[in-house]
Amino acid sequence: MLRAWDTNFQPDFASGKAIYLQIGELIAGEIRRGRLLPGTALPGTRELAKQLGVNRKTAVLAYEELLAQGWLESQHTRGTFVSSRLPESTPAAFAPAAAGQAEQPGFRWQNLLEPDLAAPVLPGALVFNDGTPDARLAPIPPLASAYRRVLQGRGRRNQLGYDSPLGSLPLREALSRMLNQDRGLSTTPAGICLTRGTQMALYLTARLLIQPGDVVAVENPGYPPAWQTFRLLGAQLAPVAVDAEGLCVDELEQLCRRRPVRALYLTPHHQFPTTVTLKAARRVQLLALAARYGVAIIEDDYDHEFHYQHQPMLPLASADTHGVVLYIGSLSKLIAPALRVGYVTGPLEFVTALGRLRALVDRQGDTILEQAVAELIEEGEIKRHARRAHAAYHARRDALADGLRRLPGNQLDFVLPAGGLALWVEFRADVNVERLAEELRLRKVVITPGSRYYVGEPAANAVRLGYAALTPEELAHGVAQLGAVLRQLRS
Amino acid sequence: MLRAWDTNFQPDFASGKAIYLQIGELIAGEIRRGRLLPGTALPGTRELAKQLGVNRKTAVLAYEELLAQGWLESQHTRGTFVSSRLPESTPAAFAPAAAGQAEQPGFRWQNLLEPDLAAPVLPGALVFNDGTPDARLAPIPPLASAYRRVLQGRGRRNQLGYDSPLGSLPLREALSRMLNQDRGLSTTPAGICLTRGTQMALYLTARLLIQPGDVVAVENPGYPPAWQTFRLLGAQLAPVAVDAEGLCVDELEQLCRRRPVRALYLTPHHQFPTTVTLKAARRVQLLALAARYGVAIIEDDYDHEFHYQHQPMLPLASADTHGVVLYIGSLSKLIAPALRVGYVTGPLEFVTALGRLRALVDRQGDTILEQAVAELIEEGEIKRHARRAHAAYHARRDALADGLRRLPGNQLDFVLPAGGLALWVEFRADVNVERLAEELRLRKVVITPGSRYYVGEPAANAVRLGYAALTPEELAHGVAQLGAVLRQLRS
Repeated sequence: MLRAWDTNFQPDFASGKAIYLQIGELIAGEIRRGRLLPGTALPGTRELAKQLGVNRKTAVLAYEELLAQGWLESQHTRGTFVSSRLPESTPAAFAPAAAGQAEQPGFRWQNLLEPDLAAPVLPGALVFNDGTPDARLAPIPPLASAYRRVLQGRGRRNQLGYDSPLGSLPLREALSRMLNQDRGLSTTPAGICLTRGTQMALYLTARLLIQPGDVVAVENPGYPPAWQTFRLLGAQLAPVAVDAEGLCVDELEQLCRRRPVRALYLTPHHQFPTTVTLKAARRVQLLALAARYGVAIIEDDYDHEFHYQHQPMLPLASADTHGVVLYIGSLSKLIAPALRVGYVTGPLEFVTALGRLRALVDRQGDTILEQAVAELIEEGEIKRHARRAHAAYHARRDALADGLRRLPGNQLDFVLPAGGLALWVEFRADVNVERLAEELRLRKVVITPGSRYYVGEPAANAVRLGYAALTPEELAHGVAQLGAVLRQLRS
Repeated sequence: MLRAWDTNFQPDFASGKAIYLQIGELIAGEIRRGRLLPGTALPGTRELAKQLGVNRKTAVLAYEELLAQGWLESQHTRGTFVSSRLPESTPAAFAPAAAGQAEQPGFRWQNLLEPDLAAPVLPGALVFNDGTPDARLAPIPPLASAYRRVLQGRGRRNQLGYDSPLGSLPLREALSRMLNQDRGLSTTPAGICLTRGTQMALYLTARLLIQPGDVVAVENPGYPPAWQTFRLLGAQLAPVAVDAEGLCVDELEQLCRRRPVRALYLTPHHQFPTTVTLKAARRVQLLALAARYGVAIIEDDYDHEFHYQHQPMLPLASADTHGVVLYIGSLSKLIAPALRVGYVTGPLEFVTALGRLRALVDRQGDTILEQAVAELIEEGEIKRHARRAHAAYHARRDALADGLRRLPGNQLDFVLPAGGLALWVEFRADVNVERLAEELRLRKVVITPGSRYYVGEPAANAVRLGYAALTPEELAHGVAQLGAVLRQLRS
């Protein structure tokens, strides 16, 4: 029996925590600190209540809680004891541990991810990003209204439950119609797997295709987040050059002759980062090559809608008669980066497996958002917004191009891209682009040197300037700063 | 020069598609079908316009489009020709391909995912799920209102742009406060990685921890979606038995002595599927063991809030002084399954790497939803909803338990769980649970035989009956059907 149990317990009525729980934490704390040892007898509830100045029912509740959690044990006729099966000294749960969040893991692991080494962006800086849309143009009111309608839709509450890992059917139906009508595909809703955006579409596709050691051909220059994904999955990257007509398919063919190529990752519409469109002859040649060698083509059509000079070229997937193309698209560029809806379509058997994989990576999508987006597509709101955004981005492209052309000194050159959200600007050999970027950073203007888009030695002294997220005034300011630094570098 | 170009071209003014594009598709189609061969000279624009009955500007636009896309080539003084660099016969893009979506991939790949072999659920069936909440109770109006406020928040449009891969800061801050206050953790917002729900939290954590061949200990019986995830990553599963006090830690210790164990996946609060709570003594022993052998404990606290008899036991993570626990939680069970917000917290270095991995799997979360949920937490709305849901689920648990106890024949037994959203019901040895499930399925009542939660031979003849998503009336109907089938099996 515990006799002189010296405690300074003061019930804290202001805390809102039940008194019996406060007593429970007190006793568990005493056990953890080793002041009450395993096997120690505790006072009866009547005595405890008297000792602590609480009523008896409170003491009973406290013991019941501690018994239920295993801190105490009750021996039928003898009374209540600190559990004899608690190891003696180590701390355990009940009251909060005093320790802060650990810095280093106490378990063995291997960190395989490369840290992000980008220089910090100064607050208020103007960023030429790598070609993302302007979140300020997002169609907020129609989106908010569609969201509310879906959320409050009567008799459809089950939409808040679990759904197909392929994504909600209304959006797959709307997308399928859109892809078949506007992009020459022949999809069915069952042949589309929705994802949280391009990056997840890419990850899932690659995860299903790639085994460690597989060769994956990529455009050089190209899109580093895709490379990181392939490398994470154990792929060996085989860079293939890009020229003024897009990917050099002859070079890919030589590679295929030498060794098995599992997949080719491609941005044929507005090549990332050079903005070049893959020409028709190369498309025909590429599809035949992929069919012959059994290479999966991952076609990332990331900004299909934004094409200014001609009708957008139809995707490779529209001419895929051999089932070799896995087509990845996204609505994020069309609505807002934060609204992440992407998709993959391709051979049915593959898409079905993608759904199963997706269930393990991310059980299902956001069905409410997906249904809201389906409504926006059906109502034509997405197309109306695309037209407005299209006009804005077209004007911004021209504003940036004009500004750059007017800079004195002939230090840069570019081909006006037929579409997309960025310019690929090549600098004269005597301009040190890394230094240019650093000087601009100090002036609160961010550009990314083109070298980061190359596997190995860069073939061009270039920069990719995303213009879509900047207003004409912001673009003018950015160009002025660029001009000032170029002048400074000349002198 | 093309002379007699026999075409039946009829401009379709009703289609809404520009006439020059219709001409472009016509010519590209002729090239694809081999009726216009590479190198063939085309009529001049004036002649083409006359032939087709369109004005000359339209003909010029059509040729420009075809030239830009690479179907035609222009030779300065000689005129316009079908590009000589098109391979002769293979189809290519411009007009839609006639083929439907391919069934089988034309590339080499290996499908590593097991197909889902569950029997189809009959329409209108009453489903005892594995313990998911009732989407019909979701707090729709506050959620819709928070969503609208965030979406329309003035001057904060940048929230629609790209965000940290750890997730939006306001929600990490709100969660950190909640975890520290209510669950005894010591988190900081930088030490929390938001995910799309428990499944993604699990996948990312496992992806970072597990190398092919690693041993991962799991509860047996346990949670198959976690096992599938570990197996997909190449892990070897080591099942550890669960008894009335939770995981048998002694058995885990024997395993650790024999071979290196990378991780333990654990549901200590209401063990899945048995609903048993891991007792205090075992918790203390387990934390010491993990620290000694460098085992990461993946603590899946999937229904922390739903505890009826006592205060919820604090998580293992609250007593983790060695940085061995990776704590996974979710708000989906609290709000609605479709609103997927989960999180991982643990040693800072690991959480930082999780953020990098997350960027490759799923660039970022739904920042609008995340901010709306943060508002709901800050306003106390989540707690109010949790109290309401808590009361409903408590009553449903009791309704199901009472109904089962009243069934005649002594064919089943269960321990009333202290919390969670399901009962673990054990049947007498002479009840064939697989047959029970099949008979019920024909009566439009779905239960899942407990055998699917075991690695190897099942140690119990049981069923996990989720009650939370069913009203008392639905539960009564389900129990009546169960009773009828049991009677049928007896006779």
